[in-house]
Amino acid sequence: MVTKLGTLHGVGVGPGDPELLTVKAARLIGNAAVVAYLAANGKDSTARDIASSYIPATAEHLVIDMPMRVEREPGEKAYDAGAAAIAARLDQGSDVVMLCEGDPFFYGSFMYLFARLAGSYPCAIVPGVTSMTASAAALRRPLSARNEVVKVLPATLPEDRLREELMSAESVVLIKVGRHLAKVRAILGLLDLSSRAHVIIKATHGDEVVTPLLDITEDNLPYFSSILVYSGTEAW
Amino acid sequence: MVTKLGTLHGVGVGPGDPELLTVKAARLIGNAAVVAYLAANGKDSTARDIASSYIPATAEHLVIDMPMRVEREPGEKAYDAGAAAIAARLDQGSDVVMLCEGDPFFYGSFMYLFARLAGSYPCAIVPGVTSMTASAAALRRPLSARNEVVKVLPATLPEDRLREELMSAESVVLIKVGRHLAKVRAILGLLDLSSRAHVIIKATHGDEVVTPLLDITEDNLPYFSSILVYSGTEAW
Repeated sequence: MVTKLGTLHGVGVGPGDPELLTVKAARLIGNAAVVAYLAANGKDSTARDIASSYIPATAEHLVIDMPMRVEREPGEKAYDAGAAAIAARLDQGSDVVMLCEGDPFFYGSFMYLFARLAGSYPCAIVPGVTSMTASAAALRRPLSARNEVVKVLPATLPEDRLREELMSAESVVLIKVGRHLAKVRAILGLLDLSSRAHVIIKATHGDEVVTPLLDITEDNLPYFSSILVYSGTEAW
Repeated sequence: MVTKLGTLHGVGVGPGDPELLTVKAARLIGNAAVVAYLAANGKDSTARDIASSYIPATAEHLVIDMPMRVEREPGEKAYDAGAAAIAARLDQGSDVVMLCEGDPFFYGSFMYLFARLAGSYPCAIVPGVTSMTASAAALRRPLSARNEVVKVLPATLPEDRLREELMSAESVVLIKVGRHLAKVRAILGLLDLSSRAHVIIKATHGDEVVTPLLDITEDNLPYFSSILVYSGTEAW
């Protein structure tokens, strides 16, 4: 007898507020027999924390242990092991709901599991609210209007690339700032954009912080931070 | 006796699938005494259509009549009239839930009402799923990984700006393509990116279309279309 393969659902759980999951995400998680998520060093998982009130008590937790090293992509081995564990459930005919911070396909780790599994198993993507628009809402400033260009720039990029991209954008979202804050600060100063930059830490989480960049005295930002920079002339 | 002012809620209803509203949007709409939305020529409203199953039968509909003219921003008068109608309800102490396609602060018209009202009334923003990440999900291709730059480019921009921005981005979302398709096609051809471009029409709607740009023979695209272009070297 052939067992029907289970489906892997890559589900965005949004930026932090548990009410910012989509109705679809809440339904899929609420019916899940197996939920999967990455956990730093096998322990902390923001995606699980955001979704926790929706996860049935009976659900199996498939924790994908992700050894965290500063500034290095976690090893392929962790994704291989995670994919194998998920595949074992799918082979048995169980669906697996993978919890993803924000949106699964917007700088998410889900893509590495998708790349390993989508060729062999049914796979569905449920988009989610990103921290990008959540940060604009937290700042109470529209991200973009009319013909404005929005750029998402990882602060890990080389200085000259960051400078060039910042010179020609009406609206910029700097992500992964962390310990690159000094570099970012210098470039924004050079371009006379410092007063147009705001830091948003943990948008929509209970401990959200919104503050002008010029008021930040630290040399680092926490992991879940963005800097929004507006250089456009639009007053919206 | 002083009446407490009502709150204006700018609520993202997501890209099209009614299940892609957030739990928060569903709750606010479900409890709304007054819902507001723009309607082209007083009639069609995609935001209302997306949210319709959540709107209580008892809710008052505040339809903001938006005369549609090709390639021109709708007049300020329509926003003035809409803001005045909303303000009248807020003055009476009623909350107003404004329905916004996608996310209220991501190329949305809500910002024009926010600009008129946020100084005088309590105003809350509920971010939503954008058509940008919904399109990536529809295409089954991650939008961005690691250090990749994502750019959102309105196709209404001048040719040289579009060309320049496209030359230096790993991942591009072209919006507002409509009748600018010929220009976009020419630029992508010039940059040898045509085979890396996909058209997504009405992502997550019932009649969603996903197709390679090279298979499109028409000279225009419908309003709710994006072109995703991947020029990065990442294989994810």
